[in-house]
Amino acid sequence: MAFKEQIHLYMNHYSTIYKDELFNHILPFWTEHSLDREYGGYFTCLDRRGGVFDTDKFMWLQGRQVWLFSSIYNKIETRSSWLDIAVHGASFMEKHGRDEEGNWYFSLDRQGKALVQPYNIFSDCFAAMGFGALYTATQEQRYAEIAQDTFHNILKRRTHTKGIYDKAVPGTRPSKNFALPMILSNLSIELEHLLEPNLVQELIEDIVVEVMDVFYKEEQGLVFENVSPNGSLLDSFEGRLLNPGHAIEAMWFMMDLGERLQRPALIEKAMRIGLRMLEHGWDEKYGGIFYFMDAQGKPTQQLEWDQKLWWVHCETLVCMAKAWVLTGNEEAKRWFERVHEYTWTHFRDPEHGEWFGYLNRRGEVLLDLKGGKWKGCFHVPRALWKVYEVFEKAKIIV
Amino acid sequence: MAFKEQIHLYMNHYSTIYKDELFNHILPFWTEHSLDREYGGYFTCLDRRGGVFDTDKFMWLQGRQVWLFSSIYNKIETRSSWLDIAVHGASFMEKHGRDEEGNWYFSLDRQGKALVQPYNIFSDCFAAMGFGALYTATQEQRYAEIAQDTFHNILKRRTHTKGIYDKAVPGTRPSKNFALPMILSNLSIELEHLLEPNLVQELIEDIVVEVMDVFYKEEQGLVFENVSPNGSLLDSFEGRLLNPGHAIEAMWFMMDLGERLQRPALIEKAMRIGLRMLEHGWDEKYGGIFYFMDAQGKPTQQLEWDQKLWWVHCETLVCMAKAWVLTGNEEAKRWFERVHEYTWTHFRDPEHGEWFGYLNRRGEVLLDLKGGKWKGCFHVPRALWKVYEVFEKAKIIV
Repeated sequence: MAFKEQIHLYMNHYSTIYKDELFNHILPFWTEHSLDREYGGYFTCLDRRGGVFDTDKFMWLQGRQVWLFSSIYNKIETRSSWLDIAVHGASFMEKHGRDEEGNWYFSLDRQGKALVQPYNIFSDCFAAMGFGALYTATQEQRYAEIAQDTFHNILKRRTHTKGIYDKAVPGTRPSKNFALPMILSNLSIELEHLLEPNLVQELIEDIVVEVMDVFYKEEQGLVFENVSPNGSLLDSFEGRLLNPGHAIEAMWFMMDLGERLQRPALIEKAMRIGLRMLEHGWDEKYGGIFYFMDAQGKPTQQLEWDQKLWWVHCETLVCMAKAWVLTGNEEAKRWFERVHEYTWTHFRDPEHGEWFGYLNRRGEVLLDLKGGKWKGCFHVPRALWKVYEVFEKAKIIV
Repeated sequence: MAFKEQIHLYMNHYSTIYKDELFNHILPFWTEHSLDREYGGYFTCLDRRGGVFDTDKFMWLQGRQVWLFSSIYNKIETRSSWLDIAVHGASFMEKHGRDEEGNWYFSLDRQGKALVQPYNIFSDCFAAMGFGALYTATQEQRYAEIAQDTFHNILKRRTHTKGIYDKAVPGTRPSKNFALPMILSNLSIELEHLLEPNLVQELIEDIVVEVMDVFYKEEQGLVFENVSPNGSLLDSFEGRLLNPGHAIEAMWFMMDLGERLQRPALIEKAMRIGLRMLEHGWDEKYGGIFYFMDAQGKPTQQLEWDQKLWWVHCETLVCMAKAWVLTGNEEAKRWFERVHEYTWTHFRDPEHGEWFGYLNRRGEVLLDLKGGKWKGCFHVPRALWKVYEVFEKAKIIV
């Protein structure tokens, strides 16, 4: 068989199973179990079988599910049932989700009464992302406005995201966190159709430098979660903190930017950093990627450091698939296969749909929930979709 | 051998090893490794061998170490080296530890610059406890004043402990937390020599009701971590939360109050609740006591729920030793022996002193630190001391 045909067969294999998993085992779980028909919005605290074990509604996860269903409607197929689900969540968010200044609450109770204040800017990030995609699907002007207002509010809060809920004493040990530039790199592309072209251009250039030259340190070959405002390393718990999955996720955002900006060097560098973080984060003893690490090998503050989390592995699959297809790097291919093997045998639940979220170091299920306060309808379906999309595109090129 | 002699032998056995451990393996670790001779205060981030791996200073742990060294000076032996250590930490705290309103910061950097705001009232609780004990040791009036001012400040902040750092939206799901009444029950006795007798009496009566009739629910036989202000159960993550070690620790505080108030029924009830929480929290598969549980068996929010923590086991040893000696209950005796066996074989480090703090569910060391952000010089020495003290007193009675 010719090389080209082998590649095609190989990619068909993965495309097929990723697609089947997405449409037959993941999306049905959420369409069947997550809609609150009585009060609106989505339940995300779902047990192994999809039973609702808690009814609180976390804005972060509501926004993500709006985005997911809007996006598959926009980009895969215009099924009206998908759009209905997106609108279902968005209506609840629109009605109850914001305080008087337009900040998104962290959580609401089932009926929509605010429970936890807007201390977390990621609620806003995913609200903007969700409403932006919903606007594309519906062309409803007010969805565009919610997305735009929220995005500008994020930029306004950018340097002091926790606002009055920040417990750090100003000035003693100033730092900046990797999460916001990382999400903004993805968000500014997601919302491009709603933003000033100059703003997007400026943001992107800014963020590429932040991620690739400030939070990534060539000397250590590591992406740090927190650095000082001038970019220097901090010798503290926060300053030593690594989150390999977070860094690897950022690297596929960077590869997307590399494609968009037509900068092969950026793609190449993102691929190398992604590989480096993956090698560093891989648990040689039991397999899987650690959740947290200390850059100097000191004890972490996080007791859950050695656990294996679904999203870390989902994002790594996307990153390695892209890295391999975009650069042809054989190491990326081998890592894709290795992480695929680990992920599908440990996180997947062949019986009840969706994947487990939390495994212990040995890869045993630690909490058998399918959704909770931090896990919703997002990483698993997005990863399955992105991976098969990468392979399908690749087949056209190869 | 007569029964009385057997009991004496048995108790001698435990007294001897607990005493030896305290004086030869625990206290030396802290006296040798924790003092910052350059900037004052204590290092608590100590690795397995006692090496300093981080220099931040957590007020909660500083206060606890001041208390520990003051208390053993007051109650075991007036060694001046112990008093010096207590004064060493107290001076640093006095100089740097409080904001302008007298609230204790959560943490300072090595030099004493404030890092994290006073969002956590337990910093204040342990500062009061430390300075109260140091006053007894030194009769320095200003130490008494610091303890008193802090105690009154705690009472002032009692209903809204997190102040401006509270992220809960007021009114939606009001609740009260078990931790403060539980600590106040211990603190009001510790500071009795500095407080108005009426205030102490009133507080104690109040707290006994809160702990034994409000947070403890007879129907479930469980102590809940959070209830609504009127005492009813809340069906939410927080409302379903159990922390067996926390409840068991509270039960030995209750037994102390029972002795003091000469209420055998209170001792008896505390013993029963302690046993019930221990049976509920015990991991039948791997041994040890779970860190967190959900009262309805639903998934917890806490990823570290199945870990085995040193303080949980230390407090349980104290509780079961007291329960057994004060009531003669055979179940308490068996549980003391079972928890002793688990604790001494899993947490103890025969090589480098002090005990490990964090084990995974299987009882393997998860983080090999001896001290950190939450572990300092407190639970291990206090438990060893309390246990041998209980047995020595018992030998006089039996």
